[in-house]
Amino acid sequence: MATILTLAGDGIGPEIMTQAIEVLKAVNDKFSLDLTLESGLIGGVAIDATGEPLPDETLARARAADAVLLGAVGGPKWDAIERSKRPERGLLKIRGELGLFANLRVAKLYPQLANASSIKPEIISGLDLLIVRELTGGIYFGEPRGIRTLENGEQQGYNTMVYSTSEIQRIGKVAFELAKTRAQAAGTAAKVCSVDKANVLEVTELWKQTMIEMQKAGYSDVALSHMYADNACMQLIKDPKQFDVMVTGNMFGDILSDEAAMLTGSIGMLPSASLDESGKGMYEPCHGSAPDIAGQDKANPLATILSVAMMLRYTFKQEEAAQAIEQAVSDVLDDGLRTLDILDSSEAGLKQVGCKEMGQAVLAKL
Amino acid sequence: MATILTLAGDGIGPEIMTQAIEVLKAVNDKFSLDLTLESGLIGGVAIDATGEPLPDETLARARAADAVLLGAVGGPKWDAIERSKRPERGLLKIRGELGLFANLRVAKLYPQLANASSIKPEIISGLDLLIVRELTGGIYFGEPRGIRTLENGEQQGYNTMVYSTSEIQRIGKVAFELAKTRAQAAGTAAKVCSVDKANVLEVTELWKQTMIEMQKAGYSDVALSHMYADNACMQLIKDPKQFDVMVTGNMFGDILSDEAAMLTGSIGMLPSASLDESGKGMYEPCHGSAPDIAGQDKANPLATILSVAMMLRYTFKQEEAAQAIEQAVSDVLDDGLRTLDILDSSEAGLKQVGCKEMGQAVLAKL
Ligand SMILES: CC(C)[C@H](C(=O)O)[C@@H](O)C(=O)O
Ligand SMILES: CC(C)[C@H](C(=O)O)[C@@H](O)C(=O)O
Repeated sequence: MATILTLAGDGIGPEIMTQAIEVLKAVNDKFSLDLTLESGLIGGVAIDATGEPLPDETLARARAADAVLLGAVGGPKWDAIERSKRPERGLLKIRGELGLFANLRVAKLYPQLANASSIKPEIISGLDLLIVRELTGGIYFGEPRGIRTLENGEQQGYNTMVYSTSEIQRIGKVAFELAKTRAQAAGTAAKVCSVDKANVLEVTELWKQTMIEMQKAGYSDVALSHMYADNACMQLIKDPKQFDVMVTGNMFGDILSDEAAMLTGSIGMLPSASLDESGKGMYEPCHGSAPDIAGQDKANPLATILSVAMMLRYTFKQEEAAQAIEQAVSDVLDDGLRTLDILDSSEAGLKQVGCKEMGQAVLAKL
Repeated sequence: MATILTLAGDGIGPEIMTQAIEVLKAVNDKFSLDLTLESGLIGGVAIDATGEPLPDETLARARAADAVLLGAVGGPKWDAIERSKRPERGLLKIRGELGLFANLRVAKLYPQLANASSIKPEIISGLDLLIVRELTGGIYFGEPRGIRTLENGEQQGYNTMVYSTSEIQRIGKVAFELAKTRAQAAGTAAKVCSVDKANVLEVTELWKQTMIEMQKAGYSDVALSHMYADNACMQLIKDPKQFDVMVTGNMFGDILSDEAAMLTGSIGMLPSASLDESGKGMYEPCHGSAPDIAGQDKANPLATILSVAMMLRYTFKQEEAAQAIEQAVSDVLDDGLRTLDILDSSEAGLKQVGCKEMGQAVLAKL
């Protein structure tokens, strides 16, 4: 028996989570997975209930659980709160406290949705790239940090971008290993592109150097390349299919993974995993809490449903169940069902559906 | 009489500079500008000649000059040099020493080149956005920085992202003022989007707060919006025309300005200006030194030629001469002349030309 903690969070979080939970329950029965579900509070709803974006009780239950399924956090309601108490802090804290250092974000083009992208079809058709983002270090967690008053009376804000060799090795290993797994599955050669800004930042010079040493010492079967972050941001637009696995630090990873997601035109479809050293993980959609459409049954639940599939694959090693969910999602797209965010009004034969109807359609396919 | 220091630099730098200088001399004569040209060393060529990427002599002459025209720096030849002596350090040092805090990068779509972009035409047609990047602060220049050995024997790299209120105000002012100028010229409402990561980084929280206060105090006629860097990176792909002027720090600006440039598909066309508080500036193409095509007469000289136009506009207030150059560039594109980087082989009636022929064609139009 294993336990999953669900944290619906804010905005569209509760709606998408409701659908994902139904899907999770259905595969739990179908594949006799013996999973138990619990729920807890995080983000703005947790602030409202307890004053804290990540209450101790939630953290304790997350530690005890085998996996966490997260909706989304944040919204304008909590924007004016003192920064140490904002919804996002709950997210950063749970990542840090659970040691979820490896964030995997897949940018995959669904052929059914190719038109939704801003990018020309020939540039992105068949796109399937994985960004491995370091998630518990770098400038997100570095000390010292803050805002101070200088002697001349003006204010100064400061943050510290910091990485040690072992932190870099830990995430590098994840990237190299995943590149090998992916290459094996696809019958191609394994390759990793490490993104840094080593021409300016010493911390990323250590990053680059460490990746080079790792590749030499243990991954000579993986082709390693390096790219500056600014160039990587360009190359993702120019020719994203040149990449297979990209690995980078917390801040560059935040930016590049969002960019890669947007290339597909359907960020509402993209799941993510954040793993610790033992494979325990937190799974969540790449999109945010979308407060503008919250509570209107307009949200796309598929990224959260696909996050369930990732959870079954990475934490519970239930490949068959994971693929069943992914197939069901592909089937509803084939049937022409579209939430608003992925609806192409110029295409014939599509049916606009709400969050609930989309979730139920996936359920029906299972 | 005014003096311009030209620094050709490395890779394709000398070729593109040769063409830009000829154009500069031609407008100097035609508009009786009384400009004197000098040349100096920076980057790899300076390392080879003097051991330093920015020799004191170059810096002294740059200080004495009224404007600097730069080609590009860097290349694999100098990659293995100890970091304090690499070509890029010369670039960072001249920016810092001359106080060139305001970097203006225009991402403009040339209608003649619309096909060169990865982005669908309807998303980018008419695109003309300005990124105002802070260039002498932030994590590029922040202290402490370095790589140290920890007590446990492993290494740790660290950099500091830091901004004070006055640094933010200084660049904010440039953005607000340029937004007003642009809006006036276009007959539209002025707007600025400030990009930060205030949900995570205290330094950018101060950035955001300072922008809000400036807008309230002195720029109520400019609409100010805020966007997180990751979202900005997505929005640039999804709908770049929502932006007019974007303002951000050194690191986010590095990434976002390259992304914006790539949207146009023709980074070989885009000039930039880096200005100090008095309006003195260094002008350079947005592209790099492209060592792979250096010395082969394949480079596109237009970004450097357009940088001359920016110089005439911003430092010398010679709008007429600036427009004459811009018109000549547009004319050669109309004539179908294309260097390799902007050649669309599926389009009829184009003529592939080298760097020299392109430069001479612009000259002929003047
Ligand atoms: C909400 C925010 C703190 C978060 C981040 O920057 O990591 C988000 O953008 C993400 O990528 O998950
Ligand atoms: C060459 C490098 C140091 C430089 C930077 O990062 O500023 C370049 O990318 C740029 O944008 O001008």
